[in-house]
Amino acid sequence: VALTLLLTELCSTGGFQVVSLAHLNHTLRATADRDEQFCRDLAGRLGVPIVVERQDVRTSARLQRRSLEDAARRVRYGFLARAAAAVQADCIAVAHTQDDQAETFLLKLMRGAGSTGLSAIHPRRGAIVRPLLDVSRADLERFLRTAGQSWVEDETNQELDTPRNRIRHLVLPELDRTYGGPTRPAIARAASLVREDAAWLDALAADSFRRMADTGGGALAIDAVALLAEPLPLRRRLALLALRQVCGEREVGFGHVETALEVAAGICRAADVPGGRVERRRRNVVFTGRGAASPDAEDPCPPVQIGRRASGEGDTLT
Amino acid sequence: VALTLLLTELCSTGGFQVVSLAHLNHTLRATADRDEQFCRDLAGRLGVPIVVERQDVRTSARLQRRSLEDAARRVRYGFLARAAAAVQADCIAVAHTQDDQAETFLLKLMRGAGSTGLSAIHPRRGAIVRPLLDVSRADLERFLRTAGQSWVEDETNQELDTPRNRIRHLVLPELDRTYGGPTRPAIARAASLVREDAAWLDALAADSFRRMADTGGGALAIDAVALLAEPLPLRRRLALLALRQVCGEREVGFGHVETALEVAAGICRAADVPGGRVERRRRNVVFTGRGAASPDAEDPCPPVQIGRRASGEGDTLT
Repeated sequence: VALTLLLTELCSTGGFQVVSLAHLNHTLRATADRDEQFCRDLAGRLGVPIVVERQDVRTSARLQRRSLEDAARRVRYGFLARAAAAVQADCIAVAHTQDDQAETFLLKLMRGAGSTGLSAIHPRRGAIVRPLLDVSRADLERFLRTAGQSWVEDETNQELDTPRNRIRHLVLPELDRTYGGPTRPAIARAASLVREDAAWLDALAADSFRRMADTGGGALAIDAVALLAEPLPLRRRLALLALRQVCGEREVGFGHVETALEVAAGICRAADVPGGRVERRRRNVVFTGRGAASPDAEDPCPPVQIGRRASGEGDTLT
Repeated sequence: VALTLLLTELCSTGGFQVVSLAHLNHTLRATADRDEQFCRDLAGRLGVPIVVERQDVRTSARLQRRSLEDAARRVRYGFLARAAAAVQADCIAVAHTQDDQAETFLLKLMRGAGSTGLSAIHPRRGAIVRPLLDVSRADLERFLRTAGQSWVEDETNQELDTPRNRIRHLVLPELDRTYGGPTRPAIARAASLVREDAAWLDALAADSFRRMADTGGGALAIDAVALLAEPLPLRRRLALLALRQVCGEREVGFGHVETALEVAAGICRAADVPGGRVERRRRNVVFTGRGAASPDAEDPCPPVQIGRRASGEGDTLT
């Protein structure tokens, strides 16, 4: 709601147009229809078109064997891309806040991410832009109250049944008490500094990968001596890119990267990795996939990572 | 105690010698003398020499206007360096654990560090080595119990009056409940991955700094166009190195780096920074210090950062 108000207000001076709002009804909550109606009313009052879609996210999750959160995210961003195409929008603005950023950083941290994962939510990725990523949720609520604008709350955000909600309601308040003040701004800034480092290192590694990876004959070969001569941050990323190409959608972890580098160094001769195998053959470390190539097999570069949110309110197409 | 036992056990096969133990009595706690005696007894039982010193850390802190923790750390590492020299040791082994590492990461995070700060505790820096940095405190306690070896606890570690103790006893357990398992290993690994990235980027930046910084005439000049042509991670680090040279011991923050880069970009013409000034002069961005040069003025590279611990037990000279 805040994003919609701000963008419809700023578009007169900002050199952009709010082409349409977009709302996905995830049909997950009893209050989902109330929220849909709220969005339709808001659009009507502002005189902005709105694209609304209903999706059975629970069934998608079951069929794809994904977590509800993961499935909801995929369905939502798929819908937003379709909606943007339908209304010929160049950008999709979504309303992640500094709070979402700090929560995502801690979620990634506790799951053992390196600096690429700790980059957390990206302010811009492809057509997706997140203009509120530096703004706190409290400031946005103050803005809405001052503007006399009501909003709807996803009441499941209050429950302590998901890691994100526990981070929000238990971990971050404890960290704030420890620091003696709000820690979300510092965490969000750490995410952004780490992201700057990681983005450049990822780009350097992708460059080297294109130069070094030989994909002839159904396998991916990299000169092991050249690989081991790279500085450690690039070496790790090169191994990860090679594994991603072989493992496709399967999860590649820190341990698999270590294993690949051990094979390259000749510490072990060969090892299995998810959906594939890594072997040392003469000067090369060779990555081979097992079975059918996955949809991602063509593109070894990290797929677009999008921060997870419990609800889809606030997505605005500009 | 665990470090001492492990190193005296391993030295027969490990190609090193435990030359001496070293214990600093910080004279901060009523139980400090008990702990000193414990260390003397341990050394006696193991047949290893021990260097013991008493220091009035509270007075040092007051005279130097430092926090007790900061003053204790400086006094302790100063003592260890002297002790190592006295017994002609090549290395100083200290007993930081994976738990210390995870705590330090969260402390740095809540204070707004970038990837260099989030590198947290280094496994090796100069003569200091930390062989237990990947080992959990729980595993070390199990080891000591199995070995039938007692130890003394710094009872102030149980109090909730310092940020570190609050992180240890409140924040990390809450994060463990959220994750559904121990999160310290993941956080410690994140610290080590971020450190690998940061170490290489810091080294690249130090290289560029030596090439780009012109320190003639009492000021430090860098070609602003060349500076702004560097990728963002190096640009930030170059500005930080220049500021460190000018600001000496004074704290340089994220905002000062931003300011220096804004001056370089011509967004503002000049700005004050702690203990100095940044100005755009023709093609150059020029950093000048005010007043007497600080002791660090000769070395713009980051000073050795050492993780903080509440107590100095477990320091072993090898």
